[in-house]
Amino acid sequence: MDVLDVAKRAQDAALKMANVNGETKNRVIIAVAEAIEHERQQLERVNGLDVDEAVKDGTPSSLVKRLKIDRSKIVEMTKGLRSLVQLEDPVGKVLLATEMDQGLELYKVTSPIGVIAAVFESRPDALVQIAMLCLKSGNVSILKGGSEAAQTNRFLVELIRKTIRKIEGIPEDAVQLVETRDAVDRLLKMDKHVNLVIPRGSSSLVKYIKENSRIPVLGHTEGICHEYVDADADVNMAIEICHDAKVNYPAACNAMETLLVHKDIAERFLPPMAKRYKESKVELRGDRRAKAILPDIAEATEEDWNKEYLDLMLSIRVVDSLDEAIDHVNRYGSHHTDGIITRNKENGRRFLSEVDSAVVVRNASTRFSDGYRFGFGAEVGISTEKVHARGPVGLEGLVTYKYIILGNGQIVESYVGENAKPFTHRKLETSVDFRKH
Amino acid sequence: MDVLDVAKRAQDAALKMANVNGETKNRVIIAVAEAIEHERQQLERVNGLDVDEAVKDGTPSSLVKRLKIDRSKIVEMTKGLRSLVQLEDPVGKVLLATEMDQGLELYKVTSPIGVIAAVFESRPDALVQIAMLCLKSGNVSILKGGSEAAQTNRFLVELIRKTIRKIEGIPEDAVQLVETRDAVDRLLKMDKHVNLVIPRGSSSLVKYIKENSRIPVLGHTEGICHEYVDADADVNMAIEICHDAKVNYPAACNAMETLLVHKDIAERFLPPMAKRYKESKVELRGDRRAKAILPDIAEATEEDWNKEYLDLMLSIRVVDSLDEAIDHVNRYGSHHTDGIITRNKENGRRFLSEVDSAVVVRNASTRFSDGYRFGFGAEVGISTEKVHARGPVGLEGLVTYKYIILGNGQIVESYVGENAKPFTHRKLETSVDFRKH
Repeated sequence: MDVLDVAKRAQDAALKMANVNGETKNRVIIAVAEAIEHERQQLERVNGLDVDEAVKDGTPSSLVKRLKIDRSKIVEMTKGLRSLVQLEDPVGKVLLATEMDQGLELYKVTSPIGVIAAVFESRPDALVQIAMLCLKSGNVSILKGGSEAAQTNRFLVELIRKTIRKIEGIPEDAVQLVETRDAVDRLLKMDKHVNLVIPRGSSSLVKYIKENSRIPVLGHTEGICHEYVDADADVNMAIEICHDAKVNYPAACNAMETLLVHKDIAERFLPPMAKRYKESKVELRGDRRAKAILPDIAEATEEDWNKEYLDLMLSIRVVDSLDEAIDHVNRYGSHHTDGIITRNKENGRRFLSEVDSAVVVRNASTRFSDGYRFGFGAEVGISTEKVHARGPVGLEGLVTYKYIILGNGQIVESYVGENAKPFTHRKLETSVDFRKH
Repeated sequence: MDVLDVAKRAQDAALKMANVNGETKNRVIIAVAEAIEHERQQLERVNGLDVDEAVKDGTPSSLVKRLKIDRSKIVEMTKGLRSLVQLEDPVGKVLLATEMDQGLELYKVTSPIGVIAAVFESRPDALVQIAMLCLKSGNVSILKGGSEAAQTNRFLVELIRKTIRKIEGIPEDAVQLVETRDAVDRLLKMDKHVNLVIPRGSSSLVKYIKENSRIPVLGHTEGICHEYVDADADVNMAIEICHDAKVNYPAACNAMETLLVHKDIAERFLPPMAKRYKESKVELRGDRRAKAILPDIAEATEEDWNKEYLDLMLSIRVVDSLDEAIDHVNRYGSHHTDGIITRNKENGRRFLSEVDSAVVVRNASTRFSDGYRFGFGAEVGISTEKVHARGPVGLEGLVTYKYIILGNGQIVESYVGENAKPFTHRKLETSVDFRKH
């Protein structure tokens, strides 16, 4: 099918989806989980074909591992879907209710965004998750997975569509698949039909999409996160936090890449910190002043400050002041997650306020920056965009709102000019069911 | 100054602006209002130069009128600024507060977006308004006005900057001016330095900006708004609403451009409606079935359904059903504001739910779709975007949020694995002053 047809069918389906109630959407999600369990062997077999080809093509084993769907991944997937069902329906929530005048009421109500194009690399289990997150929030998804997972993706999308067909009141085209890079390029220009693009994968993928899309993009490019150890930090606390932020899961986007240390604490803090890192096999690079204290480490260059290692590597810089630390973070960071370790409340307050990042942390690990840890239940991703959704994004990042005005014949003419009626602008309870009015 | 320098200075200023308190911002706004009053004669003189040139160039009188700053516009401008001061500071509001664990707290706090490029045509009074809306919300603005108003714009920006210089704690570069189309083109690519673009003007301007920007755009392209008169509408109510929606202010984006009428009410409704329109000099165009009832009117073509007349013109179409009406609105409309007139609650509910527009209205005029009428105090514009801000946008459309985590040494390692500590995810009062924690 031509990609324009796919987009138009998605748009038609989106208009229907806006009206599907929470119960029906949950029934689909549960049925998809059951179908995955039921067709488990078939899924593993098809996935095996992709895996075999990848291995034959000499794909690195870390990528093959991401590609492979085994029993534990199936358990994880279906568990994820069942917990998604538990979450509140994000559509139809009244965010604001105002009486404009007697009998003239205004409601601001969450509604689906519409058509979401989700582009991701490799991991086919992510396909099911993102499709069901979109569905739960009343959106229609057009999915493009990694080509290494082509057969698995096709199987999973067919499984989802088969499931939807069996449930009344929900359009099959709520989930569609496209398979070529060219299809993505064309989708990115279809701002009349596609409302949001979600890229998930390497920062080069995200960058490519952002540069070529005429549609809003929800995604983060990279996570160059910092911890700054202030002059009067508790040294032991700083060691624990900085170890965790680097070592707990170095491949995560919220892991620390650069450690900034105030000059007055550097000599007390850096030697025991370096020892701790050494035990965990972290390779260190430092600026001139860090190297003066830790002579064994490599030299950090300008390039290091811009680098997302995603590995057991860390650059260290000694700074003269809080201001220099804030400047460094704002200049080299990726506005993702940055922390300060300090006992000085005023310094903490300044860092939290002046560092221009989605998540700022005082006296805790940057690794807490995560939708599940935040209590959002589901995570769509972590956004470094400033508009629409920023930081860890839950289901609320997949909805927009619309304004609903309920009147009984009011015209604007009565509210303008010399004898204009005044508006009352009285706040109403948002718990009211406006559909009954 | 080179436009890249302008953007970099704006970015530096933005980091400082994030820390400016509400009182200081209000002091600037009041001082700008006073300066405008104080330098009124000078302003009128400089504006006169622009007006003279425009007249000499044969500019249409409607545009010259928009360009001219007279006493009543000055009164309006300064009144607008003083009411802006009354509005609550949109920055620093706690939207969400969660205890993740004892001593580990999460706050979601509104913060400025950063650097906003505002591009508008002609009306120089809009320049002051948008600059101060940005400033009130903690943002830095780079302004590009219409070239016809070049001298007035320069005078106003110099006046604002002079005022800011006199007030401590706020960077002068919070407001800057650029003067060429080329500067705008370059700004639109600077997604590292500029965070949001607000175009204000013709839909061709907005379209141009949307197509050429790598930065999120907050704007509406056009307002092709509809009223649909359902089969069992109250005929008198329908006449009053449809008259108001077209005639009250035809040049507004929320004015009706196409009237849809159910076939079962068309013969009762259209003749008195047409009579009423004729009295107000509205030129009507109809489809075949509308012409069968109103033989004197011109024929509407496919082009008419796509047209924003912004004038005393209206296209009329008779439809067979609610579904056909909804389809028409979703297909030809601009997703701005659309209304239904009906006594049938179920039909009303379906229209409100299935019409994919920023504002949907039951039994009232589309002209109510407006930030001031909604009680937002200030209006940044009406957005037909679906992400970030939709519909009439108040100051909250000019802020984003950041997450702040306050800990006392927590690391993620304690919350993962076999002996993982559970998160409490307890809701905290959002009224708390997190800065004291």
